[in-house]
Amino acid sequence: MARALQLAARGLYTTTPNPRVGCVIVRDGAVVGEGWHERAGAPHAEVHALKAAGVAARGATAYVTLEPCSHHGRTPPCAEALVDAGVARVVAAMTDPNPLVAGRGISILTLAGIRAEVGLMEAEARALNAGFVSRMTRQRPWVRLKTASTLDGKTALANGASQWITGAAARADVQRLRARACAILTGSGTVLADNPRMNVRDFDIGRQPLRVVVDSGLRTPADAAILPALIACRHAEPGARAALEAAGAEVVEFPEADGRVDLAALLARLAQRGINEVHVEAGAALNGALLTAGLVDEWVAYVAPMAVGDDARGLFAGPPLMALADAARFRLHDVRQVGDDLRLTLLPT
Amino acid sequence: MARALQLAARGLYTTTPNPRVGCVIVRDGAVVGEGWHERAGAPHAEVHALKAAGVAARGATAYVTLEPCSHHGRTPPCAEALVDAGVARVVAAMTDPNPLVAGRGISILTLAGIRAEVGLMEAEARALNAGFVSRMTRQRPWVRLKTASTLDGKTALANGASQWITGAAARADVQRLRARACAILTGSGTVLADNPRMNVRDFDIGRQPLRVVVDSGLRTPADAAILPALIACRHAEPGARAALEAAGAEVVEFPEADGRVDLAALLARLAQRGINEVHVEAGAALNGALLTAGLVDEWVAYVAPMAVGDDARGLFAGPPLMALADAARFRLHDVRQVGDDLRLTLLPT
Repeated sequence: MARALQLAARGLYTTTPNPRVGCVIVRDGAVVGEGWHERAGAPHAEVHALKAAGVAARGATAYVTLEPCSHHGRTPPCAEALVDAGVARVVAAMTDPNPLVAGRGISILTLAGIRAEVGLMEAEARALNAGFVSRMTRQRPWVRLKTASTLDGKTALANGASQWITGAAARADVQRLRARACAILTGSGTVLADNPRMNVRDFDIGRQPLRVVVDSGLRTPADAAILPALIACRHAEPGARAALEAAGAEVVEFPEADGRVDLAALLARLAQRGINEVHVEAGAALNGALLTAGLVDEWVAYVAPMAVGDDARGLFAGPPLMALADAARFRLHDVRQVGDDLRLTLLPT
Repeated sequence: MARALQLAARGLYTTTPNPRVGCVIVRDGAVVGEGWHERAGAPHAEVHALKAAGVAARGATAYVTLEPCSHHGRTPPCAEALVDAGVARVVAAMTDPNPLVAGRGISILTLAGIRAEVGLMEAEARALNAGFVSRMTRQRPWVRLKTASTLDGKTALANGASQWITGAAARADVQRLRARACAILTGSGTVLADNPRMNVRDFDIGRQPLRVVVDSGLRTPADAAILPALIACRHAEPGARAALEAAGAEVVEFPEADGRVDLAALLARLAQRGINEVHVEAGAALNGALLTAGLVDEWVAYVAPMAVGDDARGLFAGPPLMALADAARFRLHDVRQVGDDLRLTLLPT
């Protein structure tokens, strides 16, 4: 299963909106077939592995990181393919997170007389597809907030200078985070201040994540470098909408919450469009709004070993807290040095 | 030498104002004597080790973490004791950092026909006595700044609530830092806001570090819990001075720098009094003043995995920076988890 998870991770940057899945077929203690899912429309992991195994699949055990599918989609159901190939046993790391189909693949196998087990390395399998699981079970994407700050919590000087707080290694690492995301979310303040492209630059993954701008007042200029993008606003004045649409933007109106675009509604909409993982790179306003709304599922904090003082710009805007009990609390999931900087990965408690 | 450094470290909490020193005497590949310096006035490490070795010291090699002393102080010179004991070879990790006596101990040994070498594990030896080295070479103590903050760089909420940002394990760890220090430095703002004792509580080291309050306007109340302490002020009004002195304070006037007590002058005074290591636990004003003045030699940052927002209180006050090139830059020397928190040890670059 560990090998199957390794194979699944090869699809980290490409399977969207599908989950990353790997499959290893073992017969008499030897691997006879391996496969992984590369991108939507391409064969599933099990199909690749069965093809590699050929007749050796008969009587073998298939290790698969996700319950084999039971539905006729762009590819035939993998559960049936496993039955047809005559495997004797299937070990799945986790059931399908979609509650509407969970267990159906296992049922197909069991009814066909195949021994089927679920749960081996389940935590690792869930972590690999946290976004897909989130979309299926919560109808919203997994929100990964990336920040880059000094050790005293500053993202820029008071005059706006921010290039560079973190080093080249950290910035390259951020490219990997962007590349695995289905969408990149930022705010109009960042667009107006920095005019970022917010794309994947360092390596070719054959796609670009959907860029999304939270822009309550529709301030994004039609020549913004981030376009084409989805612009989430409160009310789209027809002229501004037309100019942005002509520049390739999709302008969508959302209800209001706390004086801005309802972020939960925006995330729900993104989930409907098959967005599993949202990568957030924004300023203190949007960072703070997401944090206050409890919408941050993972915080990846790059911290530069420097201090710039209290007049510089902070990480999270929002209403003052009255008690430390109201703090947004996380637990350290991973800590490592990236170049001269530190990268902390945190999960909410 | 590694063993000698281990022994030396046993004096971490007690040798002030002396350095921590360890000695191991080896004969024919076997340890025949060990010793370490425990406290000022007690025998030096070499004396203990020679006594333990007895006649076995003759022809042996002595590993000592600091050049053996050459002067008649409260104890006779260790260099002469090594000569008298007939050791054949002395390996010292470092020369005496006092430029007035550096090399004299080695000379005594060499003139007596003993092979003497210097430099084995020198970096470790210097790190163990960073304070003593600083006092001898720079006439000021080693300044270790301790901070406890959220990951967004806040030490308290806007309303002052700060108990507790870091957890019990981190707070216990801070007690160890206090205990190794010769002096604990804070500001009058912290004294007035929190009325801390700033003493060593968790374990008995047979002494308390000198408490020092930077108090330009002499605002420390005579019933402050931090007393007895050295109160560093600009001008001591006689009545206030008398009240504080009656409460056990020592009130000292210092020249002004940047509108407050000249911190460099204060540190120089502390060095004159034999203070090797200064532990700083203060608010943003004093933290920022020390940082801006370039007087922070080591920053131990406890970071709680939480965020409280930009309205909360920050780590470092001071004039706004105009360029990131002016940031106070450090390098990560050590990173570890302490309880649920992170402890970063940083050294200036």
